[in-house]
Amino acid sequence: MSIITLTTDFGPESIYAAAMKGVILSINPQATIIDITHSIPRHNIAAGAMALDDVADRFPDATIHVAVVDPGVGTSRALIYAEIGRQRFLAPDNGLLSRIAARCGTRRIVRLTRREHWLPEVSNTFHGRDILAPVAARLSLGLDPAELGPPCPDLTRLPERPVRVRPDRIDGEVIAIDSFGNVLTNITADMLAGRPTDARACVVCGIFETWGIFPCYAAQEPGMLVALIDSQRRLELALVGDNAAARLGIHVGMPVTLAWDLID
Amino acid sequence: MSIITLTTDFGPESIYAAAMKGVILSINPQATIIDITHSIPRHNIAAGAMALDDVADRFPDATIHVAVVDPGVGTSRALIYAEIGRQRFLAPDNGLLSRIAARCGTRRIVRLTRREHWLPEVSNTFHGRDILAPVAARLSLGLDPAELGPPCPDLTRLPERPVRVRPDRIDGEVIAIDSFGNVLTNITADMLAGRPTDARACVVCGIFETWGIFPCYAAQEPGMLVALIDSQRRLELALVGDNAAARLGIHVGMPVTLAWDLID
Amino acid sequence: MSIITLTTDFGPESIYAAAMKGVILSINPQATIIDITHSIPRHNIAAGAMALDDVADRFPDATIHVAVVDPGVGTSRALIYAEIGRQRFLAPDNGLLSRIAARCGTRRIVRLTRREHWLPEVSNTFHGRDILAPVAARLSLGLDPAELGPPCPDLTRLPERPVRVRPDRIDGEVIAIDSFGNVLTNITADMLAGRPTDARACVVCGIFETWGIFPCYAAQEPGMLVALIDSQRRLELALVGDNAAARLGIHVGMPVTLAWDLID
Repeated sequence: MSIITLTTDFGPESIYAAAMKGVILSINPQATIIDITHSIPRHNIAAGAMALDDVADRFPDATIHVAVVDPGVGTSRALIYAEIGRQRFLAPDNGLLSRIAARCGTRRIVRLTRREHWLPEVSNTFHGRDILAPVAARLSLGLDPAELGPPCPDLTRLPERPVRVRPDRIDGEVIAIDSFGNVLTNITADMLAGRPTDARACVVCGIFETWGIFPCYAAQEPGMLVALIDSQRRLELALVGDNAAARLGIHVGMPVTLAWDLID
Repeated sequence: MSIITLTTDFGPESIYAAAMKGVILSINPQATIIDITHSIPRHNIAAGAMALDDVADRFPDATIHVAVVDPGVGTSRALIYAEIGRQRFLAPDNGLLSRIAARCGTRRIVRLTRREHWLPEVSNTFHGRDILAPVAARLSLGLDPAELGPPCPDLTRLPERPVRVRPDRIDGEVIAIDSFGNVLTNITADMLAGRPTDARACVVCGIFETWGIFPCYAAQEPGMLVALIDSQRRLELALVGDNAAARLGIHVGMPVTLAWDLID
Repeated sequence: MSIITLTTDFGPESIYAAAMKGVILSINPQATIIDITHSIPRHNIAAGAMALDDVADRFPDATIHVAVVDPGVGTSRALIYAEIGRQRFLAPDNGLLSRIAARCGTRRIVRLTRREHWLPEVSNTFHGRDILAPVAARLSLGLDPAELGPPCPDLTRLPERPVRVRPDRIDGEVIAIDSFGNVLTNITADMLAGRPTDARACVVCGIFETWGIFPCYAAQEPGMLVALIDSQRRLELALVGDNAAARLGIHVGMPVTLAWDLID
């Protein structure tokens, strides 16, 4: 298995991802390297955690996912190897892996301390290139993760505001805006089980509201606000044919309420 | 043959393309995946059709091109497999393939209906990941396209305004702006055959005009508007060393006239 | 060895890089193609030279680096093949390779003149696709570079303002802004050898100054201007957790002075 993915906040125009690829290919020229994204907003660990949770387990078992959103580079924060679900991860231990770990379960964590697997010269500002890239390449060649350093008891977790689910009302929040400006929430399809999704269901976000949960964007007219269950089985809000977040001023962290008028 | 390309309107920062790559590699870890672009303007089927027409047939024969510009996702619009020229395509049947089909000819079209080749769970909002990606991966492993569903008589075609060619005048339009701001038109080199390209040829676009068709950008001074035959053998307008579309306010759909004063 | 990289000013949204990839894969379907960046500012040869110098020699020996920042396309400027350090390059001879050549040394230069290795039809506006891509693919299959054309005595060099190093003062300049807005200078760690890096060292850029050279970004408080030695062993200026170039109006070419008050 020699698939290695990269998820960073370097920016799509950056050459830093290419530096990592060069290091990987110098050690394992057969590695298949896939960019998940380099557009995580700078230093936004929560957004990086979302991206990994949404995409990583679409990849073949044992894919090595390298994640670099690392404002603490050069400080004492740990770098770790983690087996989560059926995937493998290399990342700073700053919460980047906490979302997928919460969903899929952590099987093993190792703290990276053994310098013989790193580049000979390690800078203070680019551990993605100098530590994570060579370690990923060596793992892809079959290096035993136990060689990387001592076991680590647990991951750093990001604080997460829980969704409040009651019979006639679910209170969640906006957790991401996608590249279309669609509004992703932490309310999942499972939370709606057994409740009506027709016009009795009212979704409220800021000063905006819409009734009913529809099967797809085009089920409503252009320009209308539509609620639907998205491809990650989350409640999503979209403006048909438009950018909901930009047009309505919706941003990450805004509360989203789904309420039912069950008297009708 | 296991080359698969992706052309989408997801945006270069999106993680949706990576989700498709994960699905493809889970089925065929040997596939070579190439991004054509993820920067088709959102829902702009005509721009997607241009990109495919410009680039797809540069790839090896039988490359599988997956195109996702799909405002109708989740509605009854069909998803199709098409053999066009010597390339293979998977796309919604909404006009995305009409430009390359018009130029290269369609040899076979199949409507995707056989769910056993899709992901087990299909969302309503992301058929690129749930249907097209697994089908592309299975085709790359040798699946017979006849297994995908019933034959389909024809593609949906985008309306196209024809170029009007007369002895002393050709009337076309702007069909794209490239990443340099150069202005691409639907007037082709073939349409000019036998006519002078020196200063007797006048190109008019909006309130701007320029005389003569030059061999390359640097044939004129910086800041000058220059007309030339581009790498797709189309008439192109450029501002030397600058962004013509942004500077001059030129946009897709504006008329372009090439006229000769043949009295001289 | 079949790794080919691409460095261009096409823009990340452009389909032109994909056209080059299609040409390469049509000749060598086994080639591994890596994007270094397509975000070199348009026609900015110096920025392209920086990117190649920073990243190219991270790749395996004999990697083929194709660079296209080519405002003179279609004019008489030469296209060349060059062996620099342990890497191979294909580029217009306009200075793109001068920075890495100065650092790593040139072993061989060939001018591309033999058309039988190019595409049969060569446009005047896209030599990256029509000449460099097919030549790269053929080199990756083992073509002898001597087949490409005659030897060439030297590369075109970009003028470079030298850093002035005196006992109590080093005068350099800003040579790039990275994707985080960090300010990269041409003052290298080697130039500081034996001098103090504590608060006696004062870094001045425009109207801004900061004292001391720190080991990493997080060594200072958020919002503070911090000087450090970056991952390329250059003096770098950053605003902790912010975009220094955008916030402070720093741009390429601004003088940077490092001065010591050695009386203390």
